[in-house]
Amino acid sequence: MVGERVDLFRFAHEHRGEVVWMSQNTNTIPLNPSIKDAILTSTQKEEYHLYPYKPGVFGLTEAIRNDLSIDGFDVFLTNGGIEALYSAQRALLRQGDEVVTTDPSFLPIHKQAGMSGAKVVEVPIYGEPWKLTVDAVEREMGERTKALLIIDPHNPLGIGYTAEELKGLSEVAEDRGLYLLHDITYGDFNDGQVLATEFYPEKTLLFYSFSKGAGLAGMRIGALIGTPQLVERVRHFDTNILGVNVLAQRAALASLRGKDDWLPRLREICGRNQAVIRGAVERVDGAFLPVYPSKGNMFIIDVQDTGVDPGTLEERMLLEHRVHVRAGYYLSERFGQNFIRVSFSVPPEQCDRFPRAFTESVEALRT
Amino acid sequence: MVGERVDLFRFAHEHRGEVVWMSQNTNTIPLNPSIKDAILTSTQKEEYHLYPYKPGVFGLTEAIRNDLSIDGFDVFLTNGGIEALYSAQRALLRQGDEVVTTDPSFLPIHKQAGMSGAKVVEVPIYGEPWKLTVDAVEREMGERTKALLIIDPHNPLGIGYTAEELKGLSEVAEDRGLYLLHDITYGDFNDGQVLATEFYPEKTLLFYSFSKGAGLAGMRIGALIGTPQLVERVRHFDTNILGVNVLAQRAALASLRGKDDWLPRLREICGRNQAVIRGAVERVDGAFLPVYPSKGNMFIIDVQDTGVDPGTLEERMLLEHRVHVRAGYYLSERFGQNFIRVSFSVPPEQCDRFPRAFTESVEALRT
Repeated sequence: MVGERVDLFRFAHEHRGEVVWMSQNTNTIPLNPSIKDAILTSTQKEEYHLYPYKPGVFGLTEAIRNDLSIDGFDVFLTNGGIEALYSAQRALLRQGDEVVTTDPSFLPIHKQAGMSGAKVVEVPIYGEPWKLTVDAVEREMGERTKALLIIDPHNPLGIGYTAEELKGLSEVAEDRGLYLLHDITYGDFNDGQVLATEFYPEKTLLFYSFSKGAGLAGMRIGALIGTPQLVERVRHFDTNILGVNVLAQRAALASLRGKDDWLPRLREICGRNQAVIRGAVERVDGAFLPVYPSKGNMFIIDVQDTGVDPGTLEERMLLEHRVHVRAGYYLSERFGQNFIRVSFSVPPEQCDRFPRAFTESVEALRT
Repeated sequence: MVGERVDLFRFAHEHRGEVVWMSQNTNTIPLNPSIKDAILTSTQKEEYHLYPYKPGVFGLTEAIRNDLSIDGFDVFLTNGGIEALYSAQRALLRQGDEVVTTDPSFLPIHKQAGMSGAKVVEVPIYGEPWKLTVDAVEREMGERTKALLIIDPHNPLGIGYTAEELKGLSEVAEDRGLYLLHDITYGDFNDGQVLATEFYPEKTLLFYSFSKGAGLAGMRIGALIGTPQLVERVRHFDTNILGVNVLAQRAALASLRGKDDWLPRLREICGRNQAVIRGAVERVDGAFLPVYPSKGNMFIIDVQDTGVDPGTLEERMLLEHRVHVRAGYYLSERFGQNFIRVSFSVPPEQCDRFPRAFTESVEALRT
């Protein structure tokens, strides 16, 4: 790494208009105008003066249930999916409990478990089959295991679980009476998304987000879904009793109403962009894609054998090419030096700046 | 109370366009157009696709420090002031700790203390001088007291603390090494606002909101302010590591930039509206205003001697007159049957609907 580090996120925000944002799994592909229009209309009506109706703007929780084709589950709106994960772990975990999940992972979730005094057992999945298996999970479980956290599709790997795999993991959770935390933040990108509530409704919580598919990361809206009994337990640790930003709710509702229009187009662009990135990776000696195609809107590029440090690569790609990806350090202490994470839900013409940025940067930094 | 209760907030939201919203201390007085314009501009630029820059949009934390004329303190942006109170109590309180504060109060804050296993000691202030005094506080303190929570101006009473009173309370906190939680959510309405950081910077946290003065309740943005060391402790329990809604931040920044324009006008309207309400209260036998004028944007009307139940009064005023106030039950178990809370940061022509709604409803319900 370079001695004098730049604050890369500060730099990226300062140069927002020029940067291809592939660093945070956000979605900058323009979707239906109806989403933006919903925000503009609510603003013009100055709905923002009032506290939102706590259960949600009329129609929103029903639309979420409809989106997931589930019935009889409670939907608890939160300030982003991350707040849902916080409240759930706060409500369900105690000092000394253990949560089994993966390494790599989205580490802020692990930190949240720690806030409740729980310990995260990280099953290494950096290697075939790049996902949790029943065997690996059972090996890591002990008397203190209280919950199984499955991020599906997985951040950062982009792998998804088949119905059979998810069923197997659900059975392990059920056998041991564990909570099953099924994070489906990236579910929109996955044409074969299955929900663990199908197999183990009693103790499964689904974590749902509008940040990714619907492209609303800056609006901070998500939800927690589970049986009314289970959600009620989590509501005891509601950190935002006054509700979720009303413009975010209007945008979220519009995104669900227009989803049949934008989702096929979004998936098509993501498929196209993945192929563009793959083309670039294949031209670089020592780089490879562990998971392809991704079921999410991101995957990782393993750069170990290039000898290039991912942090330096992130920096160079941003500063020299205005293409922002993320070094693995953010996602794994153990494997972080192996990879960069790249999200590709960006407009195609922006994604087309990736190949040159990546190949030139690796070549320039190769020792 | 009536047997078959209507969900009054649901009703109020269903009839949003017709209702005078005096039930939640919100502010529906149009302020500078620059606030709305900031939301519209950010939306048109589709900033909402990206996660906000975690420390805040450029200029916002500086503008908050400037607004409070403080220097050397850290500003931590939160999803509304209520989240700041949650995180602070989560970080600073332990099982068995006690927090001394008032009854009546904004009870969700007390519930948050309970989430950390702490107990809230409620000093009754329903009676002269309608606020905490050094004597009363010292009487209630014990070995387990860990924090003193001062809501100033007070919700729901509308009373404020003088510099001398606040200094006295700060000294009590300092003598005992307590955390001083100074909630200044309603500070904009108070022309004599003092900050406890002036007297006891080391362990004071300020809770700041854009929901009231700036009229942004539906945007869910607030902040926590304290020494860098103290705020760092609270950041360990950041429930929203991905930041605060970007449109909320743009609106908040615009509100601070235009504050010299809108604040005098806002205070003037609030003064005028209070007088209108007082006129109505004086015409009703058995009703009185314990605190007048209010230093906030709300006060309470004691209706004990009218024999009318506040819940029934709230319901009738809303259903028959489309004027929504709040029954005291929400704010005090002990004194809740004595009063309604009325917020008056509404356009003058809307406030003018209050007198008839109040007087007719009390007369109709009097037994």
